[in-house]
Amino acid sequence: MTSIRILGLEALDIRFPTSDELDGSDAMHSDPDYSAAYAVLRTNVPGLEGHGLTFTIGRGNELCVAALRSMSHMVVGRTLESITRDFGGFWRTLTSDTQMRWVGPEKGVIHLATAAIVNAVWDLYAKHERKPLWKLVVDMTPEEVVGLIDFRYISDALTRDEALAILRANEPTKRARELELQKRGYPAYTTSAGWLGYPDDKIRRLCREGIAAGWNHFKIKVGADLKDDLRRAAIVREEIGPERKLMFDANQRWDVAEAIANMRELARFQPWWIEEPTSPDDVLGHAAIAKAIQPIGVATGEQCQNRVIFKQLLQANAIRFCQIDSCRLGGVNEVLAVMLMAKKFGVPVCPHAGGVGLCEYVNHLIMIDYARISASFDDRVAEFVSHLHEHFENPSVVASGRYLPPVAPGYGITMKRESLARFAYPDGPAWTARTKRVAQR
Amino acid sequence: MTSIRILGLEALDIRFPTSDELDGSDAMHSDPDYSAAYAVLRTNVPGLEGHGLTFTIGRGNELCVAALRSMSHMVVGRTLESITRDFGGFWRTLTSDTQMRWVGPEKGVIHLATAAIVNAVWDLYAKHERKPLWKLVVDMTPEEVVGLIDFRYISDALTRDEALAILRANEPTKRARELELQKRGYPAYTTSAGWLGYPDDKIRRLCREGIAAGWNHFKIKVGADLKDDLRRAAIVREEIGPERKLMFDANQRWDVAEAIANMRELARFQPWWIEEPTSPDDVLGHAAIAKAIQPIGVATGEQCQNRVIFKQLLQANAIRFCQIDSCRLGGVNEVLAVMLMAKKFGVPVCPHAGGVGLCEYVNHLIMIDYARISASFDDRVAEFVSHLHEHFENPSVVASGRYLPPVAPGYGITMKRESLARFAYPDGPAWTARTKRVAQR
Repeated sequence: MTSIRILGLEALDIRFPTSDELDGSDAMHSDPDYSAAYAVLRTNVPGLEGHGLTFTIGRGNELCVAALRSMSHMVVGRTLESITRDFGGFWRTLTSDTQMRWVGPEKGVIHLATAAIVNAVWDLYAKHERKPLWKLVVDMTPEEVVGLIDFRYISDALTRDEALAILRANEPTKRARELELQKRGYPAYTTSAGWLGYPDDKIRRLCREGIAAGWNHFKIKVGADLKDDLRRAAIVREEIGPERKLMFDANQRWDVAEAIANMRELARFQPWWIEEPTSPDDVLGHAAIAKAIQPIGVATGEQCQNRVIFKQLLQANAIRFCQIDSCRLGGVNEVLAVMLMAKKFGVPVCPHAGGVGLCEYVNHLIMIDYARISASFDDRVAEFVSHLHEHFENPSVVASGRYLPPVAPGYGITMKRESLARFAYPDGPAWTARTKRVAQR
Repeated sequence: MTSIRILGLEALDIRFPTSDELDGSDAMHSDPDYSAAYAVLRTNVPGLEGHGLTFTIGRGNELCVAALRSMSHMVVGRTLESITRDFGGFWRTLTSDTQMRWVGPEKGVIHLATAAIVNAVWDLYAKHERKPLWKLVVDMTPEEVVGLIDFRYISDALTRDEALAILRANEPTKRARELELQKRGYPAYTTSAGWLGYPDDKIRRLCREGIAAGWNHFKIKVGADLKDDLRRAAIVREEIGPERKLMFDANQRWDVAEAIANMRELARFQPWWIEEPTSPDDVLGHAAIAKAIQPIGVATGEQCQNRVIFKQLLQANAIRFCQIDSCRLGGVNEVLAVMLMAKKFGVPVCPHAGGVGLCEYVNHLIMIDYARISASFDDRVAEFVSHLHEHFENPSVVASGRYLPPVAPGYGITMKRESLARFAYPDGPAWTARTKRVAQR
């Protein structure tokens, strides 16, 4: 059998002008252009490539693209087998470059780029094995799964042996859960209704459409102005009725005392969770908020930089919902570490998604979590946002409010060739046309 | 009076091939090439420029340089007066770009670049006022100083009013302390002796030279191998005697339990502090270590990403020494926030320095801390490393183990024109010559 060798890494700057419609707008990110620093791993086998991306919201994407180029020497020239033989070790190498770690370490631009590279390797691996990524991981032995993980800096919360014990306990029943996922899918929720930039009547209409489409969880953005938040929350609660779940997302807008005071007002709409009430770096702040506003749960994670922050959020009882992000964390390997810690601490993982490609990634991760780690649907929902899926060769599929298991080989992120060309920044036709439009106004 | 307008930001990639001599080597960074992402703010006034840099150790410096370019639109075109009129507001603008914050926020590459820009503005401001930076800040009113600070995410630990109270209490005596600094300087310590890559006889020789030069604090790198650490610690303790202070620096090499176990062994050499025992992101880990190894103090900060992490380290009693970094934090403004929090929590600030330019920066910051904030020398020492100072127009001056107050206008970081040319990466003569040397081996 030919060994697969990575011959090159192509880094692309792909951006969608979503700020034109205020899709994705929130209290801190008022004009996002959903973007991807996109990595293509070329190999010696014709037609076999690994695709991976990290998600950003516009400016700054060029820095992640530059980081992909700066890090490419760590993967180009390697055989796939030399990586997968010790994937945990490879992951540590990527995150431990003796010079580059200074500009992280394991955070921000270089960690976002790490995710794109790691996920591209996983895509290549899964395509080579002709399995969807989730199935590849579900089929591994418990020992193989712990071999994927770098336990550095988390061994005080989760040892290799504890991780093994979790995986072994679930091993005999994983096939039954896999079949259940094939039949029933995994529960999702939608954020499409409540972007901060949307007018009230659009929110009302989207709520009704959401209910008709089978959604039971509705999330809205808050944080810019309390009076405005109260009005919009009232609209959504009125539309979805008392039984369906309502979640708030403050996108880091508040200080600790402010979060507590505002949530005491917003509590009248019986929210299930408040997401990102304050700085993603503030473990102790989240813990103080969590204590003050129970029974409302605190949720965070989409901007939590790495497993060390998640470890502390769990240790400090700071979150009741663990919102891992498939690109903010350093790819599948670090996501698995966080999912295993969450399992040990009894906290449900409810992944962040939306953006561009995040739903496609998350679709795999939730299948792994249910089949191998959590073995439960209780209090678990994965985010789904219904835009930009049309750019992927194998977009995630949601039916009646549930994600269905991906079937195509790979990690699901391969973008259509025409989308990569059209939304290349700044020279793709979508951007040159926009520039012309703006100039004509 | 002409208003000063910033017309351009020039971003330079400057690197020194320090890895040739293993200067600065430690357990995680075995081959540093001390580097600077260097910003020059051009103005409408001939000869008046603001210079700032952020320090890195080689690869990855290009990402900080790229970030300077990506952020330049936030400063180019502004008048100096429009910035200094509301410097806290300007700082928040720089760190809150609605798209770019996604690849941070306030951490890693973009926050390092923020430091270079903010510090370049301070340099311009101080040069324009014809004062060394420390003197400019010491001369401000308490109200002006709190106006420099963005209290977002720290108000649960330090309010604007609390900061004002600290500054006002010290106001009547600040001139006396200023005079004292002019006379006596500020206590320093050296790390020049104990880089991990140095052989034993070099360590011994450097200890003797250090004592002869008047040093009373000696720091050595540990963490790669316990047996090796014990041997090197014994050499240094033997050379410096029982009275002088010995500090260890593990550069994040250990997990929490490992740090505790190793420090129980190293305790026999009566260390004053252990620096960076584990991940810089691990507030709770540092707290656990601090509790287990007292009376040895825990020190950290050089890779603590922002004021939110420092806030928590202080809230959790995780550090006994607060090692702010002039470039890791987002420039003077955020450093002041951390110094004020440290004062409130009663923790001495012992700045990280070394690298290239960090001593030059720190020289100003310690003067501000003593004159305005801490008003104490107790348990306070600032790091000093004796290399690369020759590249600066106004290098920091240390005599008899004490930093002397800078006298030249500005923030002290302006590099000599010939050094900027010679060490430009990758095309400066220092690098082209090195490439030739390596090729000839």
